[in-house]
Amino acid sequence: MAQQHLDPADPTAGTATGDALAGYLRAQATEFLRALRLHRETGGAAGGGEESVDAASALRRSARRISASLHTYRPLLDPAWTESLRPELAWVSGTLALEHAYEARLERLLQALHRLSGAAALPDRTPAGPGGGPPAAADRASLTVGAAKAGALLDRQLTLARTRAHSTALQALGSSRFHAVADKVAVLASEVPLAPAAPVTELHPLAAAARERLTDAVAALPLLTAGHPYNAQALVHGLSPDPSPHPQDGPWHQVRLLLRLHRYAREVLHGDAAADVRILAAGQALDRHRDASEAAAAAAQAARTPRIAPATAYALGVLHADQRHEVEASRFAFQRAWQKETVEAV
Amino acid sequence: MAQQHLDPADPTAGTATGDALAGYLRAQATEFLRALRLHRETGGAAGGGEESVDAASALRRSARRISASLHTYRPLLDPAWTESLRPELAWVSGTLALEHAYEARLERLLQALHRLSGAAALPDRTPAGPGGGPPAAADRASLTVGAAKAGALLDRQLTLARTRAHSTALQALGSSRFHAVADKVAVLASEVPLAPAAPVTELHPLAAAARERLTDAVAALPLLTAGHPYNAQALVHGLSPDPSPHPQDGPWHQVRLLLRLHRYAREVLHGDAAADVRILAAGQALDRHRDASEAAAAAAQAARTPRIAPATAYALGVLHADQRHEVEASRFAFQRAWQKETVEAV
Repeated sequence: MAQQHLDPADPTAGTATGDALAGYLRAQATEFLRALRLHRETGGAAGGGEESVDAASALRRSARRISASLHTYRPLLDPAWTESLRPELAWVSGTLALEHAYEARLERLLQALHRLSGAAALPDRTPAGPGGGPPAAADRASLTVGAAKAGALLDRQLTLARTRAHSTALQALGSSRFHAVADKVAVLASEVPLAPAAPVTELHPLAAAARERLTDAVAALPLLTAGHPYNAQALVHGLSPDPSPHPQDGPWHQVRLLLRLHRYAREVLHGDAAADVRILAAGQALDRHRDASEAAAAAAQAARTPRIAPATAYALGVLHADQRHEVEASRFAFQRAWQKETVEAV
Repeated sequence: MAQQHLDPADPTAGTATGDALAGYLRAQATEFLRALRLHRETGGAAGGGEESVDAASALRRSARRISASLHTYRPLLDPAWTESLRPELAWVSGTLALEHAYEARLERLLQALHRLSGAAALPDRTPAGPGGGPPAAADRASLTVGAAKAGALLDRQLTLARTRAHSTALQALGSSRFHAVADKVAVLASEVPLAPAAPVTELHPLAAAARERLTDAVAALPLLTAGHPYNAQALVHGLSPDPSPHPQDGPWHQVRLLLRLHRYAREVLHGDAAADVRILAAGQALDRHRDASEAAAAAAQAARTPRIAPATAYALGVLHADQRHEVEASRFAFQRAWQKETVEAV
């Protein structure tokens, strides 16, 4: 039932109840446990291969979905139990996400440095474990001194951060705190703790509320400006003394989270095969917005390293501005995707 | 006749001949001499006021038009006489243009630094003569140390360049070489030296050829890419070891010149009141393209100053990238303006 596509025009579509939610949660909990087992088997230790990375990604994926469903549909669930699990799931997915985020950020920044140097695209780096070294010297041959030094500096800083995140994630997965989370998810896989006397048994109004929170947040975004190409807004404050990340990015990050909640709320009702391509496009634009925003901040941060050469600082300035323009381009892409989206039944 | 608007649908429109050209050249030559007199009266000396600036601008304006008409309609004119005057007019307008260009470049870069610092817009600087100092300290209070230092560095370098350009222009205007140009223009104001046996007496085919040279050059531009917002092409090579200005800008600069030739060729036929707003919009986009391209190069050049602080270099990197995005935005604006333009009779 949970994975079944319900036609919004179908009169039975309005009757999705706790059963659909329980089915979805059971499926996601099972997936969480499967990914956990795989992660342990493939050894999340240093230098963990592709399978280990995939397992960690699958763990985060199901943790996000369980957490989102507990939030959107909380009136149907045992409140005390739900409230105790949600922050723990957020801790798990947040802790596991960091290593990947640092790696992706470094990749993005090195690719940008190569693009800005007019060099051929950086050859695909195999996702190196924490033991993976900096890119081969040959990769840097076509860069100016400044770009090469900036790349080396970012490589050092982000590789260190990634290595630390990797250790933290491994420690977390071995902790008693994590075992408690896994135990709770195991309960979910067999028996979803529904509210004893649920005041609401119908899912649609709750999904509609999630959609409304999204729509309200989008309405507060400066979409008119964003839809005007080359509005130069994302780089305003690019040299301001305020600390990064830019405060103007906050509402967009918030919409990204609300869009994800909306998407997962729909999955409970319609299954993920029914994912709306426009919602997916809007979500991808906001992911890119977040990634570029954080990459720009990392470049600005690296430029504050004491005793760097002026040529390094110059390259980091160009890189920062480039990524802030990616931020602006992402907002434009989101505006286009959102504009296309028609109001639809949830 | 020259300033009269000829309707392209008017059957007499096709009969514009040497008379129209002679009328136009006489009018522009008279304007050149008037501006020259005004420039001498208002004293182009150091600290010359607004009137002197206006006079220099009017001089350049008429020199460009005379030069363009001699080029487009050269089969109607005495070839030896024309060929001797054209390079001299280019020398005059090029020499006079430099001072203004450095001043506008500095203004553009300081405005950008303020925008990038999230500060209120820079208060209008009265166009300072070469004696004019850097902007008041209060203007810089809202900038970070890096942005303020970058602004001061650009101010020093571009003010020095402008002062030199001013001296060079004054020397040029007092030279015997310039007096020879002025004498020739005085001849033009009274008696246009038409070709003794002009093989062509009809202007329209020559104006059409000017338009065709423009259309061909535009067709060779990467307009498909330019029309796609945030294509990130202008900053490719932003960190390359190649010297600035970017070679990719060349074809756009060339189109800017051809567009101007086309516009002046139309003025001879239809008068300047008949200027096409879309041609004007396309021309403005290309002017902005040129200005941003040169401002970006000035920021990159300033970053090569020995012994600057990393914070200064970082700010110059951000500024360079910002101006390269202005370059990209200008190409987008040109593409839009050009797309709107329908093929029209010249």
